[in-house]
Amino acid sequence: MYLIPKSHPRAKSLYIREKLVKGFDGGVVAKEGLMAHGRGEAFDYLLGEKTSKYAQNAIRAAASSLVSAKYPVISVNGNVAALCPREIVKLARIVNAKIEVNLFYTNQKRKETIVKVLKKSGAKEVLGTDSKSSRRILGLDSVRRVVDSNGIYKADVVVVPLEDGDRTIALKKMGKKVITFDLNPLSRTAKTADITIVDNVVRAINRLISECKKSKIRKIPYNNKKNLAGTVLEIKKNLSRRMPHA
Amino acid sequence: MYLIPKSHPRAKSLYIREKLVKGFDGGVVAKEGLMAHGRGEAFDYLLGEKTSKYAQNAIRAAASSLVSAKYPVISVNGNVAALCPREIVKLARIVNAKIEVNLFYTNQKRKETIVKVLKKSGAKEVLGTDSKSSRRILGLDSVRRVVDSNGIYKADVVVVPLEDGDRTIALKKMGKKVITFDLNPLSRTAKTADITIVDNVVRAINRLISECKKSKIRKIPYNNKKNLAGTVLEIKKNLSRRMPHA
Repeated sequence: MYLIPKSHPRAKSLYIREKLVKGFDGGVVAKEGLMAHGRGEAFDYLLGEKTSKYAQNAIRAAASSLVSAKYPVISVNGNVAALCPREIVKLARIVNAKIEVNLFYTNQKRKETIVKVLKKSGAKEVLGTDSKSSRRILGLDSVRRVVDSNGIYKADVVVVPLEDGDRTIALKKMGKKVITFDLNPLSRTAKTADITIVDNVVRAINRLISECKKSKIRKIPYNNKKNLAGTVLEIKKNLSRRMPHA
Repeated sequence: MYLIPKSHPRAKSLYIREKLVKGFDGGVVAKEGLMAHGRGEAFDYLLGEKTSKYAQNAIRAAASSLVSAKYPVISVNGNVAALCPREIVKLARIVNAKIEVNLFYTNQKRKETIVKVLKKSGAKEVLGTDSKSSRRILGLDSVRRVVDSNGIYKADVVVVPLEDGDRTIALKKMGKKVITFDLNPLSRTAKTADITIVDNVVRAINRLISECKKSKIRKIPYNNKKNLAGTVLEIKKNLSRRMPHA
């Protein structure tokens, strides 16, 4: 690993980046995952690298859905496992959710490495590696059409952090309630999901855990479309702040 | 390599992404370079993945500077070598510029691999690997402070595609005229350079080559700050188009 000069104005972001690089070296993160992280970084930068009130709204709505879900499942990919494995396990425990490893660039070895990371972080059970319980999602020509019959296939509410658009649409067609973390408020995933938390998963997941821990979860009025529009307005304001004459 | 489904709405972007992955597999691109590409992708997406009139202004100004330069040098890093090595060689030939390999995450082996790629693409001479002619740039604590005494060190005009902010500032302090390609109009590099081409290097470099080929290059009035502000306005318009109620 290279030394990140402390004087570098993007040092904080560079440290998170190194987490991904470590995850990559450990066989958890795919090459494409490194690029996806870069895309997230750019949007996070435009959001001012903080949790907006719109993200907080979405987090509250997500907590309410998760706490009242019958069979919630959290889908984990390489980037999520590299960034916040302990938090995933904590969230699953609090809302009594299953954890399923599910990759866009599928790869049995990488799946097993991710399972190890999650178990090391405290997970008792991780679904998604047993071919006997695999089911195919219809309407997907990507390699990521396989899900676990005891996991996503059976779920009423699915948390899919950092998800691909095709798969989010397929999950919606299966009748799932979809909660996603996506830093791009314009993505198909963001627009298709029921609840889109437009925030860095590293920041937002701790807030989601806190919300789920609250003894009384009020059902709040929530409109994902309006919430996304608010987020885009926030980006536009940030752009104006940073480039005053634009 | 994985099959990219043709039906995927981001297929074009995914193909370019695979170029980077190939470059990574071939030892040309660094892990951090994959993430940097992702950041670029996000900004390109916000720019509508096309060359704006502001980018075209910058390209024209860059051509004028390059054609009238006394000792122009083009700095090449891993991502540039993976994306458009032939175009770099072509541009260097047309404006009679030196090519220098210069990396943020320096590494002698990777440097030599990049030299090979450039020579395979037609380059006669590539600077930056001979320690006897290396010079240090003052005011940089990054590993990328070393430049070639017959290259960047001696140049009056430097083309630094996909550059880091610290280094752009250091080059300006050395009195160089800096031309950069940067998809983030708010970056320190974008704001520090004399001419910032806010466009995907894959698209913009061909336009730059065309401009440099023109027999008569008119000196056009150019203001980088105003041009960047125009670009940011373009992003804001694109955001509004894609999210009409924001």
